[in-house]
Amino acid sequence: MSVGSDEINYLVYRYLQESGYIHSAYVFKEESNVTQACVKGGIVPPAALIALLMKGLQYVESEIMLNEDGSIIEGRSTEALSLID
Amino acid sequence: MSVGSDEINYLVYRYLQESGYIHSAYVFKEESNVTQACVKGGIVPPAALIALLMKGLQYVESEIMLNEDGSIIEGRSTEALSLID
Amino acid sequence: MSVGSDEINYLVYRYLQESGYIHSAYVFKEESNVTQACVKGGIVPPAALIALLMKGLQYVESEIMLNEDGSIIEGRSTEALSLID
Amino acid sequence: MSVGSDEINYLVYRYLQESGYIHSAYVFKEESNVTQACVKGGIVPPAALIALLMKGLQYVESEIMLNEDGSIIEGRSTEALSLID
Repeated sequence: MSVGSDEINYLVYRYLQESGYIHSAYVFKEESNVTQACVKGGIVPPAALIALLMKGLQYVESEIMLNEDGSIIEGRSTEALSLID
Repeated sequence: MSVGSDEINYLVYRYLQESGYIHSAYVFKEESNVTQACVKGGIVPPAALIALLMKGLQYVESEIMLNEDGSIIEGRSTEALSLID
Repeated sequence: MSVGSDEINYLVYRYLQESGYIHSAYVFKEESNVTQACVKGGIVPPAALIALLMKGLQYVESEIMLNEDGSIIEGRSTEALSLID
Repeated sequence: MSVGSDEINYLVYRYLQESGYIHSAYVFKEESNVTQACVKGGIVPPAALIALLMKGLQYVESEIMLNEDGSIIEGRSTEALSLID
């Protein structure tokens, strides 16, 4: 797996654009030079940042809820789990 | 699990700040009113956005590599897997 | 005569807006709180900053070109006079 | 006399910088490309925009207060004169 700052910046940039934060998107584009980095933006679907954060949350949930062998740990709950926690 | 736009905005805001994009952070703070939302920022560790995106990538990797019963699917590779793909 | 920073900020803000610098206008509005100052913006005509700078330039020209009694000083020229000089 | 938009932009840019509006100055620099224009910024003294606006106000005052021959028009006052009026 590879995670570069250029790729994270691109996801953040697209998020800002798609969410309507036009001024933030502009300033970030200039400050990070994100559109000049070698990122294949054309293949990135809308809401990619949100989708990947959701998957990250699902991964965390499984870390909390499951044993090594994949069985569910009794008594734990992820009802209150959110991005911030 | 809960994913609100306030929480995503807060993670993005912290990312901008911590990465040194001071102008983007300022403009985004104003444009999204993120610091006025009810987000418990104090409990968010540094690089939280990056960490959660990494976990999201790990989740995607497992979706590609594993069968329903947890066994590895032969012949597949995630060497070239990145945030953008 | 009175020159307050609120008034100068307002003229600058209007200049940014009218010139199409939409991002600069937004950021300046937030950073200076200009729209919350007690400035009677409704009576300010378009291009007010430019017009007043032009008059300032005319004033400087007269300072260069004229004696105390209003007669023209021989041999001086303002052909190359610009805002920057 | 010459008044170009590059020169006005430069005066505005310096004003934003010197007044401490660091985010506005940054965004304006990017949006207007002012630092790439052929403006001899090194010879521009601090507070140049303010000084020139002041002179513009003095010019307006003289237009209001003086006759063609330089004599003062009776009964007029510029006490309430400001940049905005």
